[in-house]
Amino acid sequence: MTDIAILGAGVMGAAMAMPATTAGLTVALVGTPLDAAIVSALQAGLPHPRLGVTMPAGVAVHQPADFAAVAHGGLRLIILGVSSPGVNWAIDRLVEGLREPIPVLMITKGLFPGDGRLEVLPSRVAQQVRARTGLDLTVMAVGGPCIAGELAALRDTSVVITGQDAAVATVLDMLRAPYYHARASQDLIGVEICAAFKNFYALAVGAVAGMAETCGEAPNGARMHNLSSSVFTQALSEMAILIEVSGGVPATAFSLAGAGDLHVTCVAGRNSRMGQLLGRGLPYSRAKAEHMAADTVEGAQLALDLGPTLGAMMAAGTLPPDRMPLTRGILDTVCRDRPLALDFSRYHRA
Amino acid sequence: MTDIAILGAGVMGAAMAMPATTAGLTVALVGTPLDAAIVSALQAGLPHPRLGVTMPAGVAVHQPADFAAVAHGGLRLIILGVSSPGVNWAIDRLVEGLREPIPVLMITKGLFPGDGRLEVLPSRVAQQVRARTGLDLTVMAVGGPCIAGELAALRDTSVVITGQDAAVATVLDMLRAPYYHARASQDLIGVEICAAFKNFYALAVGAVAGMAETCGEAPNGARMHNLSSSVFTQALSEMAILIEVSGGVPATAFSLAGAGDLHVTCVAGRNSRMGQLLGRGLPYSRAKAEHMAADTVEGAQLALDLGPTLGAMMAAGTLPPDRMPLTRGILDTVCRDRPLALDFSRYHRA
Repeated sequence: MTDIAILGAGVMGAAMAMPATTAGLTVALVGTPLDAAIVSALQAGLPHPRLGVTMPAGVAVHQPADFAAVAHGGLRLIILGVSSPGVNWAIDRLVEGLREPIPVLMITKGLFPGDGRLEVLPSRVAQQVRARTGLDLTVMAVGGPCIAGELAALRDTSVVITGQDAAVATVLDMLRAPYYHARASQDLIGVEICAAFKNFYALAVGAVAGMAETCGEAPNGARMHNLSSSVFTQALSEMAILIEVSGGVPATAFSLAGAGDLHVTCVAGRNSRMGQLLGRGLPYSRAKAEHMAADTVEGAQLALDLGPTLGAMMAAGTLPPDRMPLTRGILDTVCRDRPLALDFSRYHRA
Repeated sequence: MTDIAILGAGVMGAAMAMPATTAGLTVALVGTPLDAAIVSALQAGLPHPRLGVTMPAGVAVHQPADFAAVAHGGLRLIILGVSSPGVNWAIDRLVEGLREPIPVLMITKGLFPGDGRLEVLPSRVAQQVRARTGLDLTVMAVGGPCIAGELAALRDTSVVITGQDAAVATVLDMLRAPYYHARASQDLIGVEICAAFKNFYALAVGAVAGMAETCGEAPNGARMHNLSSSVFTQALSEMAILIEVSGGVPATAFSLAGAGDLHVTCVAGRNSRMGQLLGRGLPYSRAKAEHMAADTVEGAQLALDLGPTLGAMMAAGTLPPDRMPLTRGILDTVCRDRPLALDFSRYHRA
């Protein structure tokens, strides 16, 4: 019998097999059609090509077609580890495979434009599965600073799990591993907004590094860390406002899900790299086409996907434009292809 | 006529001459007895030996004995830029030199043990000057991420100035420079707690870097950024509790003064370096004696100065020990010379 199915064998999906197996549970790691090479490698006992670790005992690796069979075997939890664009594929698999409502824990991040507001992915998954199958799924989500490679290497990682209380308590109990410090959060909306927007704001923190490169060191050796920390803090403040207007708990922006995840996201990664290019003065279109054509830059994609909704919210006053100068600067750069112009003089005014 | 006297010609005192002179004001930069070499260099037109910049036009540099004469010349503001141990010397100068109550802006940071609680320096300065002269000084303070060398190089810097509203408004107006983004804060206690404790918590964030060195990279290249961000976030949370029990506004911990200043403090500096040594497993006594004997490590000094008070507050329950696991870990390491044992499993528990 399998305890947990992980749908999506990318870095984050595969890494989640670690706390589960450490806790003594059995895991079915089910790839998506994009994960074929990963699945083959893992089935051959080779290390995960992107994660650099072999799967521990207790993990069975499956091709996508096996999901329904896995789902019928008494699962206690499904972890959705597909990438954001893969979520519709994952919903199809749930609709196809589920005969009873098995709790779902989403690692997949994403927001989508609702009717003049931001909608979080877990609600959408639950709603679509309900509409198509009549099953009422409990959909939870994970947030917090978690570089997959570190979790896969069993290095200490603190996260929050959010959703319906009793379901979250069960998951916390299931994923008990000495290096995986999972906590309950009651703010699903806030956690999801942070998880998505940390990539967006990491563009701006990264941009300061690019600006510092362009300016060079000052004759006295000075760089631009003051500005970087100012932008980081302004990002937290605007994240709190986004949470507030979306019906979540603003304080979540200052917790693991917000400050913690933004902090780790700014260490490295594609969003920081794109930010650095923008900070050097490249327009977004050139930075993307010439330097990162093959990369998904989640923060920029979020700007493109949600820019019109955020603009409409600001025009309608449901999102206060005066308190969102950093957000507006990033949107102008990515959505209107304007040179990055962060207006520091407007930060920290509330 | 001189507009502003800066008492203390160290890096931060001297850097404050920049926004003042950019704003068109005249500055008297008055050294302490420890600043003799700096004063000589600056008076000879050489760059500031530690800041690497020459003083701009509008700055007159003085030996300590000149302070009374400067103070009698129609000053509008005194900036206290001495180091924490120099504050009593600075109070003596104020007592000696002031004939009328000139507003004071403190850059000097520090907390001291009160009667079972933490007391902030501005209140102490005001109280001592009042007791000894009868003058009622308005004492303000600065917080936020400000590496002095960057401010001296006129690089964008965002700070908060806190104290009595009208006085703060006047100072914001005086220090108007395009690269100096100063904002008002009404939470003097919170800003001061953050300014002091950011050094303390930077020890722990730095310790993670030391632990990562000891562990080395994992075979898959993983480091310990997840943990570093977890510790950073826990520090914000404990800073908010310290503010709350001290009568300030907890949200200050998540603003420029808290998150912003901790963020910049963790980039480099003596506190991070000491943290790194502790994270490698060195006891504090050895780390200090063998590697940093000549350095003032403010965060460790704060632990030594305030450890007994913090311990008493936890014993009395005025500071909830269960919510301060990071603080307790640092205190154990510095005050009791125990090997650093950060108990991550207790972080983020509410």
